[in-house]
Amino acid sequence: MQTNISNRCATAGGTGIKPLRYAGGVLQMLDQRKLPTEEIWLDYRDYREVAEGIQTMVVRGAPAIGCAAAFGAWFGARDIEAEETGDFLDRFAAVCDHLAASRPTAVNLSWALQRMQGFARNHADRPVEQIKIALEYEALAILEEDERINRAMGRHGQELIPDPARILTHCNAGALATGGYGTALGVIRAAVAAGKQVAVLADETRPFLQGARLTAWELQRDGIDTTLICDNMAGYLMSRGLIDCVIVGADRIAANGDVANKIGTYTVAVLAREHRIPFYVAAPVSTIDLSLADGSLIPIEQRDRREITHIGDIQLAPDNIGVVNPAFDVTPARLVTAIITEHGIATGNYPVRLAELVNCGG
Amino acid sequence: MQTNISNRCATAGGTGIKPLRYAGGVLQMLDQRKLPTEEIWLDYRDYREVAEGIQTMVVRGAPAIGCAAAFGAWFGARDIEAEETGDFLDRFAAVCDHLAASRPTAVNLSWALQRMQGFARNHADRPVEQIKIALEYEALAILEEDERINRAMGRHGQELIPDPARILTHCNAGALATGGYGTALGVIRAAVAAGKQVAVLADETRPFLQGARLTAWELQRDGIDTTLICDNMAGYLMSRGLIDCVIVGADRIAANGDVANKIGTYTVAVLAREHRIPFYVAAPVSTIDLSLADGSLIPIEQRDRREITHIGDIQLAPDNIGVVNPAFDVTPARLVTAIITEHGIATGNYPVRLAELVNCGG
Repeated sequence: MQTNISNRCATAGGTGIKPLRYAGGVLQMLDQRKLPTEEIWLDYRDYREVAEGIQTMVVRGAPAIGCAAAFGAWFGARDIEAEETGDFLDRFAAVCDHLAASRPTAVNLSWALQRMQGFARNHADRPVEQIKIALEYEALAILEEDERINRAMGRHGQELIPDPARILTHCNAGALATGGYGTALGVIRAAVAAGKQVAVLADETRPFLQGARLTAWELQRDGIDTTLICDNMAGYLMSRGLIDCVIVGADRIAANGDVANKIGTYTVAVLAREHRIPFYVAAPVSTIDLSLADGSLIPIEQRDRREITHIGDIQLAPDNIGVVNPAFDVTPARLVTAIITEHGIATGNYPVRLAELVNCGG
Repeated sequence: MQTNISNRCATAGGTGIKPLRYAGGVLQMLDQRKLPTEEIWLDYRDYREVAEGIQTMVVRGAPAIGCAAAFGAWFGARDIEAEETGDFLDRFAAVCDHLAASRPTAVNLSWALQRMQGFARNHADRPVEQIKIALEYEALAILEEDERINRAMGRHGQELIPDPARILTHCNAGALATGGYGTALGVIRAAVAAGKQVAVLADETRPFLQGARLTAWELQRDGIDTTLICDNMAGYLMSRGLIDCVIVGADRIAANGDVANKIGTYTVAVLAREHRIPFYVAAPVSTIDLSLADGSLIPIEQRDRREITHIGDIQLAPDNIGVVNPAFDVTPARLVTAIITEHGIATGNYPVRLAELVNCGG
């Protein structure tokens, strides 16, 4: 792995913010742990390093980790020394299993890996070297499609945004969480592009501070009016009539419309319902897991205690204090006003409507 | 001001944790900004320094700042060079006004200062030097009464706590927030002392992290089972049935039972109602402000943006991002299951019951 420090603004500025870039067989990931004070790009050429980058949150955000995993799969495939296609496919499956284990909650990760494996299996009649070449194109296709998907989601979703609008968002469902443009923040960008007057309230999103470090950074880059708050302030602002709607991303959506997303999302949804504020979820159909009947079946990742007890080297809590650190929670479908996808919007009747959006594209 | 670094555990350990100690004309305040990693006691002899200590949160917590302000008033009185009692009282009023301006939301601050001024006025027939001597005793009385009040509150309140109980608390309403023992944490200590099996979930309480730094520290010192969580995790835990009740302190309670307390309290109350979990407030009657009809009249302090954008010298958010930082919010009385005071418990009918508790002591 090699480190590049880019000029501020030179590579990630404006609406062109992207967390991943690929050229010459090397995946570069913007180290999101260092934002907003440093922009450091790390080079990846090995699938194990990509898995570690996902696990340690160099890259995060359900769609972005799907894209990164696709390149990880390609690196793994590239390094497999096999002459027989069957042997290659077996070893490729092991590569994908390793990548899939890097984070459990976001389904886009396994979605991307299944797509890569399905693609390889579909060309099992070809020589191994040809399959390898094609897998590189497939990873690139996943990455490039993701931004197009988000722009489509933005076009659909922005119609739900009032003008003017004060929009609360939680975590980072932005360009940095995707191939580009963003899911929830893509809808916000599309509303701004449509000429609407938008002000964003960004939850800082403890413990990893994706809101403070990432959402604030990328919206500020795009010149979108953004105010940072602590997670526990949203209720106060809603009670004073200062929030018009909520929009968040998702890591996995069950068949019934239950939504797993960053820890704290459920609380925001409860508050939104209490104040009769619409609560929107923006996510690509690859986030919808029709194999799970409801949200209770979604695995919730528990992360390291140090994320809560320390910031950098500063100790915030006494030694050995008990800690729980669930990274996600599940918002029941009854609290979700609408789910926005690239294929259209579901507003209730989720068991039927989500299947339609996944299967028939609209 | 002079700095003392005490031995760990030597002065503040066990149930004897106290944020203030007074001897020989010097008030020592435990610098709560440095906890949990350092125990530093600062010496105060001047009312302006006490006001600054309150403003910068060396000491915090509504009852504790009332106690600290009483000593500040005494230091101010001591330094007034006046022969005429009328002149003395005028200048003493100016001292108290300066102290009262240090923080706006907690009513205990002005309560303690009014008590000190009332005491001086009640002895306006005495020579100035005698009034000064008596004011020192009055400040000591306020401090010593506070712990007794909290123990009475604990005896009343612990009867509401089930056995076993998993109790969520927000911010620090503990020994460190009072003359000793604590309000909300006093009720928890009393439940433990009554032999109940209690586990505490402590919200870290952004931005100042009173839960992580102070509540976790003092409960751990007392050997009470404590688990630290981020503020945005309480909803997740409630949805999984892992919290039996909530207990918090208060900075000001309006005549109708609306409760101003640390930012985020309102959100916890909304979540508690959603999950049918009792939401208790523990506060001395000096916190009840019968002059305010409802919570909309309680001034909400806005604090510095840096509390949100930085931890120590670590920058968490981009330069110049918009920030709002309300230090408190108001929980409407309809969400409050009971208000626990040293004089007894109010469970609804707050406009009548709070006045009874304030005025007749039971």
